[in-house]
Amino acid sequence: MRIRALSEVLPGDPVTNRDLAERFGLHERWLERMTGNRTRYLCRADSPDGVPKLTGDLAVEAGRRAMDAAAVTPGDLDFLILTTASPDHLMPSTANLVADRLGLNDLPALQLTSGCAGAVQGLHTARALLASGAGRGLVIGADTCRKLMPESDEAVRALGPAGMVNFAMFGDGAGAAVVEAEGTGPALTTEHLVLRTVGKGRPPAQVVRWYGVEGAPRVPGPRGALVRESMAEEDYKAIEANVPGLAAGVLTELAAAVGWDVPEVEHILTPQLNGVMTERIREHMGVRSDQAVSCVADTGNNGNALPFIQLHRAVAPITDDPAADGDRFLLTAIESSKWVVSGMALRWDGGEPR
Amino acid sequence: MRIRALSEVLPGDPVTNRDLAERFGLHERWLERMTGNRTRYLCRADSPDGVPKLTGDLAVEAGRRAMDAAAVTPGDLDFLILTTASPDHLMPSTANLVADRLGLNDLPALQLTSGCAGAVQGLHTARALLASGAGRGLVIGADTCRKLMPESDEAVRALGPAGMVNFAMFGDGAGAAVVEAEGTGPALTTEHLVLRTVGKGRPPAQVVRWYGVEGAPRVPGPRGALVRESMAEEDYKAIEANVPGLAAGVLTELAAAVGWDVPEVEHILTPQLNGVMTERIREHMGVRSDQAVSCVADTGNNGNALPFIQLHRAVAPITDDPAADGDRFLLTAIESSKWVVSGMALRWDGGEPR
Repeated sequence: MRIRALSEVLPGDPVTNRDLAERFGLHERWLERMTGNRTRYLCRADSPDGVPKLTGDLAVEAGRRAMDAAAVTPGDLDFLILTTASPDHLMPSTANLVADRLGLNDLPALQLTSGCAGAVQGLHTARALLASGAGRGLVIGADTCRKLMPESDEAVRALGPAGMVNFAMFGDGAGAAVVEAEGTGPALTTEHLVLRTVGKGRPPAQVVRWYGVEGAPRVPGPRGALVRESMAEEDYKAIEANVPGLAAGVLTELAAAVGWDVPEVEHILTPQLNGVMTERIREHMGVRSDQAVSCVADTGNNGNALPFIQLHRAVAPITDDPAADGDRFLLTAIESSKWVVSGMALRWDGGEPR
Repeated sequence: MRIRALSEVLPGDPVTNRDLAERFGLHERWLERMTGNRTRYLCRADSPDGVPKLTGDLAVEAGRRAMDAAAVTPGDLDFLILTTASPDHLMPSTANLVADRLGLNDLPALQLTSGCAGAVQGLHTARALLASGAGRGLVIGADTCRKLMPESDEAVRALGPAGMVNFAMFGDGAGAAVVEAEGTGPALTTEHLVLRTVGKGRPPAQVVRWYGVEGAPRVPGPRGALVRESMAEEDYKAIEANVPGLAAGVLTELAAAVGWDVPEVEHILTPQLNGVMTERIREHMGVRSDQAVSCVADTGNNGNALPFIQLHRAVAPITDDPAADGDRFLLTAIESSKWVVSGMALRWDGGEPR
């Protein structure tokens, strides 16, 4: 599989730690220290026209940019895949709505329910569709994590310190890739792909619920009173205890499969939880700073979008000078919701004889 | 692709029109006339132990039954696909939770967001995974449509006549298939598959929203007062106007692709909206009653489960006498959410020389 073009979309202006601190009565430095994130981008219902407000808006813009970068039109595409944890509706799939807005018709439009491993799930599925006869497709990862949080400022403040750290860690965004079975010109080629659930017997470390018109049921709260069930739960201890080792394992497995020596690999895309955790994971994986491609400190954790954005940023300096340089990429993404390990080994092909 | 075994699961006892009429102060005959459905099966939080209560419960039981019928163990499977419009959570995917409960680990577990065309989307994706190296997989379709309706009896009554017809049309259930690239023994073999979105420029005819802890926002209601936004909307006029023609088109396309004469095809699986609409569609498609395989009048419209249940019921009399008889099957499923057409041409292979 060749990744012919990549894109990224972040909605509106960056929201700084100072912005959050002022809005929610917190200390800017505390937010920075606890999350390691400097900015994030959040969809807002009152954004000006043209600024993405929904998962579908982000996905459409990312898809359009990737199609433009690949110089393809709707008629050149044989499938669309969208991966997300925050669809705009339960039905129709956001993928089908996005297809219409991108002018895509008469093709399979699939939507995968996924979290941090979503990009690899989407690319894994794309690779299978290409193997079974499709020529070219569009894979988009998009999330509006803001929609998974309490809505009003008052409700966000009521989250308390741990909840505010969580709030400050996430963001909204989208990324996309145009993929093809064969082609000419520069591309990232897939040399190996790892994707498997390892959740057997492990409780989920991230849960996000959804509700109907009446909202969350009331459950006994900490002081005996009935309170709304929590929409989202995270077990950071389980994440801290497991993600670094799982990421290191995927890195080793990928490198062994393609016969690369990890210290020599030019670009290593590490799991992107937040700035603090991502640095810890990088060190645990034995990845040098100059090899690591990380963006979560600037983008916030925008779930399904992140690996596309990492790839986009890693490749951008190369595409400015698209000669065949053979740069190697190892991507790792660990989903702690119910424990999925994933990764890819990719190589830059400049599309010209070396 | 060979479908080696099929299964179906319906939760608890059938809910009759008399049951609904008594509970919600309606006329039994009116419900029957408006929907054409006699019974449906609904998940209930207070069901006895062992009766499925959630989409995941239904999916696990359907998966287990299909694995038993195919005589495969977790180690024999290379992937799991779940298709649903009513996942238990936004994260983790219900597919990953189901994998754990079925003892499946170290494989890709994918969840597709889908409606009436979900079974074909799942089988299309499965076929691609088999083409790209997987040997065998499990595909499950499951829905708890009850969860997409208002919760309390009072809120259901407040839906009014049109809403009650809608309520009486749906049901909960699951179905599953064990699929493989190659194998021995009896199986349904896929001769052709159609799957494409045709939603360009057509508004969605089915929308189901999801909400956070606070529930639906208040919007201006019919008499000026603020009321909760509706969770689900259906445009029955658009469905009535478009589904019969789209289904007839898929049937013709499938038959032409495999060179079958429709009047000679033994089993034709028609779209399953409700008893009344399904009969009208059958007539529009020119399908005889003795060819049609329909179950919605008994099961209710349980979305992603239905095509699996139709296939299970169509094949059951044949598997009782598993000689090679070459029976032909044409399956059609039209998703009106944002307009997806889908279908399959299948043939029964008894696994013995003819």
